[in-house]
This record gives sequence, C-alpha cells and structure tokens, in this order.
Amino acid sequence: MSASMDTDDVDFSTVATVTVEKWRESVSIKEQDVVAEEVAIALEYNGISHAVMMASPADLEDFALGFSLTEGILTDPSELFDCEVVAVPDGIQVQMQIATERFIALKEKRRNLTGRTGCGLCGAETLAQAIRKPLPVNSSAKFSVATVYAAIASMQQQQQLQQQTGATHAAAWLNKNGEILLVREDVGRHNALDKLIGALAARNEGKEDLSCGAVIITSRASYEMVQKAASMGIGFIAAISAPTALAIRLAQQADVTLLGFVRTHSRSHVVYTHERRIIS
Amino acid sequence: MSASMDTDDVDFSTVATVTVEKWRESVSIKEQDVVAEEVAIALEYNGISHAVMMASPADLEDFALGFSLTEGILTDPSELFDCEVVAVPDGIQVQMQIATERFIALKEKRRNLTGRTGCGLCGAETLAQAIRKPLPVNSSAKFSVATVYAAIASMQQQQQLQQQTGATHAAAWLNKNGEILLVREDVGRHNALDKLIGALAARNEGKEDLSCGAVIITSRASYEMVQKAASMGIGFIAAISAPTALAIRLAQQADVTLLGFVRTHSRSHVVYTHERRIIS
Repeated sequence: MSASMDTDDVDFSTVATVTVEKWRESVSIKEQDVVAEEVAIALEYNGISHAVMMASPADLEDFALGFSLTEGILTDPSELFDCEVVAVPDGIQVQMQIATERFIALKEKRRNLTGRTGCGLCGAETLAQAIRKPLPVNSSAKFSVATVYAAIASMQQQQQLQQQTGATHAAAWLNKNGEILLVREDVGRHNALDKLIGALAARNEGKEDLSCGAVIITSRASYEMVQKAASMGIGFIAAISAPTALAIRLAQQADVTLLGFVRTHSRSHVVYTHERRIIS
Repeated sequence: MSASMDTDDVDFSTVATVTVEKWRESVSIKEQDVVAEEVAIALEYNGISHAVMMASPADLEDFALGFSLTEGILTDPSELFDCEVVAVPDGIQVQMQIATERFIALKEKRRNLTGRTGCGLCGAETLAQAIRKPLPVNSSAKFSVATVYAAIASMQQQQQLQQQTGATHAAAWLNKNGEILLVREDVGRHNALDKLIGALAARNEGKEDLSCGAVIITSRASYEMVQKAASMGIGFIAAISAPTALAIRLAQQADVTLLGFVRTHSRSHVVYTHERRIIS
C-alpha cells in the first residue's frame, strides 16, 4: 500500500484500569480490574465525514483500509493515498485521502441520499444498499476440521485484549498452509474483521491470496460478516458462535463455506454451507 | 400511546429451518436446525428514511418507538401518531408518522449534516453527536443481588428465540417489586434494549416508572447500552457479560448503577459504579 501512516503523535490505550467490587457467594473484594476501551471513531474521506463507529482504539489504519475495501468505497489498497489518525475531543478522526475517482463515486452515491442517514450497516441508507449481494467467490480454500480446531486454539492464545478484559471479539486469518497469520481484536465483531482484512491488504511482503485461506471469528456469523468476507473473495468462514439465517442464505448464494458453533473442547461444529471445502 | 399499529397484514418469521451437518468427535449427523432470522429494517419518519438496521423481525413497533425515544427523536410516546410495518423487497420498512415539531427538529438536525452519514451509532454523523452525555438519572431503584440473580434465571426461561437458535440477545425489565415484567429479544443487543424500552413506553395499563426498576441484559454493557438506558432515566443495569471502559465512565457520570459479569451459577458479579442501589 502506498499510504503513509502518521500515527507517531498519538497513542491510544486499548484498556483502562478501574476499581471494582467483585462478589462471589456473598463475599466481596475490592480490586483493580482491566476493562476494554471503546472509542468513537470517525472515518473521513478527503475531508468529508462518512461514518462514526464505536471501536477499540488499536490498528485503526488497518480498520480504515479494511472498512473502505469491504464496503466497496475503495477497490484496491493503492487508492488510499494517506491515512492520519488524529485524537479529537470525544473520539478519534481517521482522515483518509483517497483517489479522486473513488471520492467522486462516493460523493455521487451520497448526492442521491441527501437528507438521509444510515445506521448499523456502515453507511447504508436504503434497504437495497444494506442488502448488497456479492458475486460468488472463486475460492480454492480447503481445510480439515483438525486444522480449524487448532487454528481456534492458536487464535485464542493471541487474543491479548480479550485475555485482559473478556470484552472483545477477534478475527483471525488462516493461511493456505493452515497457520494463523494474523489476529485482530475489537469490541465490535465487524470491526475486528475489517481490521483483519485491512491488515492483510496492507501487507507488502508475501501478498496474501484471500481466495486460498479462511477467516476464523469468535463471534456470531451475522449477515455483514459473510458479506464483508465474500466481497473480498474469501470462501471459508468458521465462527465460534451461531450464524443467522440471512448469513447462511448469503453464504449459500456466494459459494462461501460456513461453519458455526465451532468448539474445540468438545471437538464439535456445525456445517451450514458448501462442505466440499472441508477435507478429511 | 396513541399510535395505531397496523401489522395485521404482515407476519414475519423470526426463525428459519435449515439442513445442517452436525459434527462431534469426527461423527456427523444430518439434521434440521433452527436459526435466527435477521432482516434489514428501515426506520422512516414522515416518509423520510432515517436509518437501516439488521434486526430480528419481531416486536418492530416496540423497536420503532424505543429507538425513537432512546435516540431523542421523540420525547414522549404520544408524539408517535402512526406506525406501519411493511414488507418490501430485501427487508421491512417501519413507516412512522410523528408530531410535526419533532419532525421539524429531526429535519433541522439533518440539514446541518447534508452529505454525511452515520453508522453503528444510530444516525450519528459527528463525534459530538455520537458521544451524547445524558443528564444524571434520578433513580430510586434498589435491588438485592439475590433479586438480580433470580431475575436473570427468570429472563433466561423467557428467551424463546435464544432457546431455539442460540443466536440472540435479550433485554429484560425488572420492576420495583423485583419481578421480570417484560423480555425482548434481538440479534442485536441495542435492538433488544430499544424493543424493551418501546414496549414499556407503549403500555397503557399500569404505566411503568422507569426510574424505579432495572434493565437486565444478556450482552456486554457497551457504551450505547448505558447511553440509551440513562437517556430514559433508568438507573440500574445488570449485564451478564463485560462492560467497556466508556460505558463505565458514562454510568459513573450519569449516576447509573452498573453490574457486569453477573453469573447465577457461580453466584458472582462485579460492581462497577454506584453500589448504593444494591441492598442486602
């Protein structure tokens, strides 16, 4: 990626320490407890504010790039020219400079929506926009269930924020060799996935082929998780928690293999779609 | 509430049945599984689309009223004149007719934001809007921990959607007598809370005084959960999962008692703020 990342001047803590009273069986102790920070993040394109989301204040350049790609604002990492993370009252601004043609496309989309706003769906104002249907992926990913179980165990060891706070989700990338290459965490599940995808897209060395790997998520597989992954050509998603019906239908249509309730301790999981990518 | 609720003509299923392959210890069975529906819901005020959210398609009038109140679009249930739930391609429109002065106030807010949009924060386009700081509540709520534990057990018995699908959150209202009065469920935690608050506001018989009760939530206590509750004058929140640092700070400022990690089986919980409302 050609973006310059100017974050030297800001340092955000992802956790805070608070004094709490912990009770168990009617006995209490006063303790210092570590809790997850949650910060309002405003994403700006060429000086125009696009969306505000609550997120964990880490890996914000990954987040900005990942969000821009999974939401179709950018079609390639090279279209992001600059990304500055700036602390402001009440939150953080992520100021992106993007290619003129992408900005014109974004403005054009906006012009048709004047006076409307969106919520929970990353800038979608209409139902048709919210329910974007990605084309079927062309994924050659193939993994054994043993590899997926091992990947989840490996991911869990790398969930530093979760280990400290018990409050965050993670998304991890399982590469074609069956190794966890990257883990990203956030208080929001879709933010964790956007951070992961942004981090993968920003890698200069050994450019990762998204069509050969899998996304592992600690959360539920809701609609936008499958939508974001499929829009990047990712064809294999394993979720620790439940999928929704809409997520399953989208995975079916987009040719994405979807596993849910993947539990390493009981060595159990449920296959919802396209089991052909699961090898023995 | 004076709103007429015209939903006789639409009937949305909150669950779907899918054929899945369930694996445990390398043995699989093909089964019919029940999964939670998730539908894009467009909230419209006087013909103008305001926000689109993914939600469970149940109790949508409660959702519309609760969202309108907790987001400050309406200040009283009587300002909602009509609410129609209409199935459209790709989702559901909830068409609200609201009092002219409230609609003018909403449009005015919008005019200042032309060309911007929001995401994840229910229509917030700027950081200042996202981080609204409710006034301190004036809550007389007082509950023993035994009552809270019993309330959680009672709520769990009433989580029908969760029992079927394992994919949904719930928010429940604990009244001043220590009884669970209402439970609402949704794939989104803030939607469950909005549905609960809307249902409470819509009750004609025995109007509930929100300053005397408590909200019990199965989810994490993230910022917007405390914000929504505090904006309605609710002064007691018990969450089964973790709070965030920002949620704790807001609860501290807004004089809201916040409990997290409330676990009935181990009879344990953590008190984060304003413990004076917990009685023995």
